[in-house]
Amino acid sequence: MPAPLRLGLAGLGTVGIGVVKIVQKHADLSAYAWETDPVALARRPDIDVFVEVMGGHEGPAKLATEAAIAAGKDVVTANKALLAHHGQALAETAEAAGRVIRFEAAVAGGIPVIKALTEGLAANQMRRVMGVMNGTCNYILTRMQNAGLPDETEFEEARHHGSLEADPNHDVGGIDAGHKLSLLAAIAFGTKVSFDKVELEGIGNVSIEDIRMADDMGYHIKLLGVAQMTGRGLEQRMTPCLVPAESPLGQLQGGTNMVVLEGDSVGQIVLRGPGAGEGPTASAVMPDVIDIARGFRLPTFGRPAATLADPIAARSATPAPYYLRMTLLDKPGALAKVATCIGESGISIDQMRQINQPGEADDKAIVLIVTHKAAPADIAHALSTFPATGVVMGTPVAIRIEEV
Amino acid sequence: MPAPLRLGLAGLGTVGIGVVKIVQKHADLSAYAWETDPVALARRPDIDVFVEVMGGHEGPAKLATEAAIAAGKDVVTANKALLAHHGQALAETAEAAGRVIRFEAAVAGGIPVIKALTEGLAANQMRRVMGVMNGTCNYILTRMQNAGLPDETEFEEARHHGSLEADPNHDVGGIDAGHKLSLLAAIAFGTKVSFDKVELEGIGNVSIEDIRMADDMGYHIKLLGVAQMTGRGLEQRMTPCLVPAESPLGQLQGGTNMVVLEGDSVGQIVLRGPGAGEGPTASAVMPDVIDIARGFRLPTFGRPAATLADPIAARSATPAPYYLRMTLLDKPGALAKVATCIGESGISIDQMRQINQPGEADDKAIVLIVTHKAAPADIAHALSTFPATGVVMGTPVAIRIEEV
Repeated sequence: MPAPLRLGLAGLGTVGIGVVKIVQKHADLSAYAWETDPVALARRPDIDVFVEVMGGHEGPAKLATEAAIAAGKDVVTANKALLAHHGQALAETAEAAGRVIRFEAAVAGGIPVIKALTEGLAANQMRRVMGVMNGTCNYILTRMQNAGLPDETEFEEARHHGSLEADPNHDVGGIDAGHKLSLLAAIAFGTKVSFDKVELEGIGNVSIEDIRMADDMGYHIKLLGVAQMTGRGLEQRMTPCLVPAESPLGQLQGGTNMVVLEGDSVGQIVLRGPGAGEGPTASAVMPDVIDIARGFRLPTFGRPAATLADPIAARSATPAPYYLRMTLLDKPGALAKVATCIGESGISIDQMRQINQPGEADDKAIVLIVTHKAAPADIAHALSTFPATGVVMGTPVAIRIEEV
Repeated sequence: MPAPLRLGLAGLGTVGIGVVKIVQKHADLSAYAWETDPVALARRPDIDVFVEVMGGHEGPAKLATEAAIAAGKDVVTANKALLAHHGQALAETAEAAGRVIRFEAAVAGGIPVIKALTEGLAANQMRRVMGVMNGTCNYILTRMQNAGLPDETEFEEARHHGSLEADPNHDVGGIDAGHKLSLLAAIAFGTKVSFDKVELEGIGNVSIEDIRMADDMGYHIKLLGVAQMTGRGLEQRMTPCLVPAESPLGQLQGGTNMVVLEGDSVGQIVLRGPGAGEGPTASAVMPDVIDIARGFRLPTFGRPAATLADPIAARSATPAPYYLRMTLLDKPGALAKVATCIGESGISIDQMRQINQPGEADDKAIVLIVTHKAAPADIAHALSTFPATGVVMGTPVAIRIEEV
């Protein structure tokens, strides 16, 4: 019988409690001791694996993780912020010391997506990875769609629901989901984590109007992460997108997460499951511990950290259809002027609808346009020419339609 | 640098070709030699891993796999029939010899579901596993639903499509999917593979009428495998079921596979991907080879074969709502008589619809009933009392509505 594996668990919040419950249920929890200082815990000679579920990318979590590696411990962490900011340095240090850092619980909660990418799809050259990976944002967007409530109400509900991070911008601003995307991208494409290169836009500007109008045209709005390797380099974006309402991503409701993995051999694999919570996250922490117990040791990002490429970060240039919403002065020739701007930017129009809202003044109309595939730069150019027409009121909305 | 891993590949059909392509693309295919006899190939001293992608549960596949284990080789196989029939014996032999048998490609094509169950969800006690795991059946059912074509046409199309097995009953009769379910059940519940205990019913009796009427009531019909551990024992069934049209299983179109895994910590995980074909299946074969190369060695069914329990096979008794369709003589009191039979069998009715089909004789009516949750035995009892009413024509249809 092998020697028991001794865990040092730092953090007794939701995830930590979940880990203790699983250990108690499925293994012998023979004895435990308390430490108040996580760094002291990380250094204890009587632990083999340091399990970090405190969170935060600076301060105690970082210090304790570094201390654990320096003291020769393997590390299992649920901390996406820490790895998004310091993953490369931590991985290099760990690998130089012959230690592993595992982080299944850091991305998409209970979905075993890191294992699927590094092991299950190991024979594939990945083309694109996508994901809805922040349950709070998806919960808010779904509720806005289903109930048509104003954002503020949703926001309060999510807060009471207990699912909102202490700093709402962390969730709603897309930072948390961006951290996760940067980790997936590193694994999928063999590049160094580059969170600072993620094009980040939260859901703060997504309006009820756009959710409803997109729905009318057969689309749902999601905070969608996309990482893809192109001829120009690695594109990473975490932004609101339209996706077809009938697609698996479009169907995703509430706090559930979904990751889409596209490889050259397998085609498309979709993984769906709970993105947070005590049980699901602990369910993702434990297999990392079990792999260490079984002697299954892989480099942090699937390949040796020293061999990971510096990604050429590309600003998104992959063409896609776009959804445009604008308010026009309702006078003869207004629509033609806008259509001309779009056409002269090299963009063709797939659908156009004019909506006269009841209760609105007669002198303006809302116009919705779905373009054919267009380069983001061409869309930006078209938008920049709108003011000179004298018929476009306010700032038009442009949202990418991701082909999923 | 470790010594190269030498593969013996038996079978050069769709899957075999896919494996060769991946190996050529991602690794050095330094040299190869031909063998015409798979048993001779399995015994060659210059191979380390025997990769069996021939298929068939007797004959060459079985002999060659046994020969490979006897000669001290590890085995990677895509052969669900072989493991469904001889998995326990093969696993015991392999484990006694210190060899591994891996079979990711045998279940649900490109979806890394075996790894998800044995590793990614290793900390969970599984409650239920479900799956649509035969692409041909799902393709036929989807086409019947979308096009409303008669079964015979679909059948011919599938044959031309090249996706039908040599013996159509293998697919359409649910045998292939039943093989896969029995393997998932063994892993999920730590029991010996017991394919002979799977309640098996193919899609041969699923009619266009039922597909349309189920659709009208918000359900789609799928050939769905369900394995669940109950207080009475292990239930395994591979049968046509109704599932809510809006659920991930209900949304599944064409040849795509889906597996649903439910564990006590994680809740529900859904995996979706291509169920067959050269690339996807080869994508599932290679990670097994890579794991062996990496020294990641697990028992065939996740736990030592000698410790797997003999499952107490339970005939399905888990209650579920049922869909009933019957033709009644359209005379006063007919509906009341049927409702009485159902009520006296302890079943309550959730929905009832009477449909008078245009073109049908006036003296009969089609009646659709959706029951509340009822035990399968109570449904069978109700059906057995219908003939005595004198108002039920022909044989009523009863299809389980699985809660997903």
